[in-house]
Amino acid sequence: MITYDLRERGSEPIYVFLYKKIRDDILDGHIRPNEKLPSKRTFASNLNVGVNTVANAYDQLLSEGYLYSSEKRGYFATDMQKFHDIKINTSAPRPVLLEEEPDFFMDFRANRINLNNFPISTWNSCMRKAILDGGDNLYKTVPYNGIPQLRNAISSYLYRNKGMSVDPEFIFIGAGTEVLLRKIFELFDPGVGVAMEGIGHKTLAKQAHKLNIRINIIPGDDDGMDTKKLAKSDSSVCYVMPANRFPTGRVIPIKKRLEIFSWAYSDENRFIIEDDYDSEFRYSGRMILPMFAEDTKKRTIYMNTFSKTMVPSLRISYMILPEKLARVYKDTLGFYSCTVSSFEQFALAQFIESGAFERHISRMRNFYRKQRVAILKELLASPIAPKASIEEHNAGTHFLLKIKTHKTKEDIYKEGISKDLHISFFSDYIVEDTDKPGFVTLVINYAAIVPDKIPEVVKRLNEIF
Amino acid sequence: MITYDLRERGSEPIYVFLYKKIRDDILDGHIRPNEKLPSKRTFASNLNVGVNTVANAYDQLLSEGYLYSSEKRGYFATDMQKFHDIKINTSAPRPVLLEEEPDFFMDFRANRINLNNFPISTWNSCMRKAILDGGDNLYKTVPYNGIPQLRNAISSYLYRNKGMSVDPEFIFIGAGTEVLLRKIFELFDPGVGVAMEGIGHKTLAKQAHKLNIRINIIPGDDDGMDTKKLAKSDSSVCYVMPANRFPTGRVIPIKKRLEIFSWAYSDENRFIIEDDYDSEFRYSGRMILPMFAEDTKKRTIYMNTFSKTMVPSLRISYMILPEKLARVYKDTLGFYSCTVSSFEQFALAQFIESGAFERHISRMRNFYRKQRVAILKELLASPIAPKASIEEHNAGTHFLLKIKTHKTKEDIYKEGISKDLHISFFSDYIVEDTDKPGFVTLVINYAAIVPDKIPEVVKRLNEIF
Repeated sequence: MITYDLRERGSEPIYVFLYKKIRDDILDGHIRPNEKLPSKRTFASNLNVGVNTVANAYDQLLSEGYLYSSEKRGYFATDMQKFHDIKINTSAPRPVLLEEEPDFFMDFRANRINLNNFPISTWNSCMRKAILDGGDNLYKTVPYNGIPQLRNAISSYLYRNKGMSVDPEFIFIGAGTEVLLRKIFELFDPGVGVAMEGIGHKTLAKQAHKLNIRINIIPGDDDGMDTKKLAKSDSSVCYVMPANRFPTGRVIPIKKRLEIFSWAYSDENRFIIEDDYDSEFRYSGRMILPMFAEDTKKRTIYMNTFSKTMVPSLRISYMILPEKLARVYKDTLGFYSCTVSSFEQFALAQFIESGAFERHISRMRNFYRKQRVAILKELLASPIAPKASIEEHNAGTHFLLKIKTHKTKEDIYKEGISKDLHISFFSDYIVEDTDKPGFVTLVINYAAIVPDKIPEVVKRLNEIF
Repeated sequence: MITYDLRERGSEPIYVFLYKKIRDDILDGHIRPNEKLPSKRTFASNLNVGVNTVANAYDQLLSEGYLYSSEKRGYFATDMQKFHDIKINTSAPRPVLLEEEPDFFMDFRANRINLNNFPISTWNSCMRKAILDGGDNLYKTVPYNGIPQLRNAISSYLYRNKGMSVDPEFIFIGAGTEVLLRKIFELFDPGVGVAMEGIGHKTLAKQAHKLNIRINIIPGDDDGMDTKKLAKSDSSVCYVMPANRFPTGRVIPIKKRLEIFSWAYSDENRFIIEDDYDSEFRYSGRMILPMFAEDTKKRTIYMNTFSKTMVPSLRISYMILPEKLARVYKDTLGFYSCTVSSFEQFALAQFIESGAFERHISRMRNFYRKQRVAILKELLASPIAPKASIEEHNAGTHFLLKIKTHKTKEDIYKEGISKDLHISFFSDYIVEDTDKPGFVTLVINYAAIVPDKIPEVVKRLNEIF
């Protein structure tokens, strides 16, 4: 009869030790297929343990299927002979944990910001207030489109700052623009045509077949896409950034907007996606009216994110659906959980309602305006100036720097890393590389540059070129 | 020449008032297409305002395309005649805000929990600690797969509690299981076959064509799916809940597990998705070893969520990818931002590392065990007992209650609402309704029931049937 030396068990409970021993003996064939196990009583008395201890071990083995029982006949080992070539693990080594990675001296990537500018203490007090005032509400299931408090706060903000009249019922909160875009595309038939400006949106284009969409790249000019080509493109959705076209920061002018509305209005199944990312950062004039606000026939889906205006670690974006699509969403996708925890929704609602968000935007606009001037001045005074040209339109937090060079992008990237700079190329963001031989275009995102570091950053850039 | 009465402007800045007036006059044709506007100087002196004020209005109109300028000739109204039938809004009414919705006396839906059991003050202090200790780290861009602190904490938890050895590099944090499942499916070719037990997973099946997968429903028996049928089903992915099969709470026994491993190991492109949702709540024996831990050939994708073990308002789930798939993810999907804000990742890491998470799980297990006994006892002693049968297997936080009735589901649902109960039907979760005529099966999720309310909840259920 099977027996085990209980002294081997260390600090484990006896029943767990017995369970493991029997399991391993069954797996490796020491207990033969269909072999009868000793009765609980006999086994317990043999091992000098309580019957319950053996019963617990047997129960676990039964529930996992290592044993089967037959009424009045007892317990038997499961026959797993035909799987003798399948090895399984029954224990695991301790895993190795991660170490933290260091930061770059300067990281030009678009989703970086300078943390010194964020009103951390105000945000912290909004988070504390959410904890104190939220009570049970913090821990309840979040409505599929976000908590009402945040949707109300966003609606009021949009009315005050962008001239938009938005029913909070049609606002949808999500963990990033990408999460929301997926939901939008699910509202359309698989394979729906999505029109985009010539410059493209690399990540969307790359994932198009996974997102069940066809991307139609529409060529255009300085004012935006050629709407004659748009009309011919078999698209039902037109994706635009009217306030701040990527990457140039140009605005879509009223005539082109009317052309796009005309395209959408001529078929009841056509919609416009207005991505208003970065539109808060314009350095001249007043804010540009979103197409959503101009649209009289409710064909515009509006999207924006707080990751850019607040901090990149805050994953909160929102979209506004036209009533017709909002109803479809509720009926067909309303079963999906909201992707943002309610706590951060409460804190953000608090931040907006208290006026802190608008103060922050206004402070950041001033900061970025100065930052832009300072880095442009430093660049233009540096040896790089004669072989470089700059494209920017008084908006956003980046500009393009086109440099005459025979170095490859790979070499430039490596040299950057060796100088502790994370270089970002324009070609990383667009569908087709537009650089002519002998030229390379960098994206200079100055949102992340600490003012004191500007001379050193420009010096290191100069060393590369 | 155009002129405006500045007294109409109210509290608006003069340049904004001028901008709007000119814009509206161009849109409605009061200023004719291609009409020359007065020079800035003349207009300013006419209106008795500064030249800069007019310049600001003209600049805004220029940047939005209402005006165009011609060198040395001046400013002209854009010709938009061909769009005379397209109306756009230039201002918006104040939106109406939402009111809060009331709670139900009892809500049986699966994503509800009883908030009294959550250690709110401990969680609040973890959130406060995250705010205090996190510093700049809180506001930095989150790595695509989550912050290292949380991935380390999860790895250690899984080692201590589930016998899993997990490299934190292969852990991916996401805002809910659904977000992560989408990412998993993107790692496979569009149209990949996903096998599922006969009972199905209604939301997945409903969305299959949007997710670019084919769902293959595999019939089976009490032990799980028929693996012969699995092998014939042209599936590359097999979705299982080995520790707590929905909805019965049964475990997949070792023999069936070996069959599934054997299926996966016989083709290098086959993978298992192990959804370990709810596995923490077993009321007898020790925790069931996940298939991920048993798997010697790294073919198992493991998934779990904190929404169930913590609170539903916390949208944090995670998955563990086999090394091969983790590399594919990094190369092809690594550009996607992590969908969970870093703040809550820090707080959760703190909650796990401090031991609070394990204490909470253990307390909840005891609470649910008692809750289960209490509600079963109350139901069995009530008039409903003779016409009802119960299916449950000592696990999870719900059981099935099959009731003999001739009422329709619609009527039962409405009567529930009138009694302030949100009834949940088994058929809401499965692909095909299994209820025979004259019977209806309810899902009784007892996680959300406050102990004091049990008699009243059972009384109201009895009144319906």
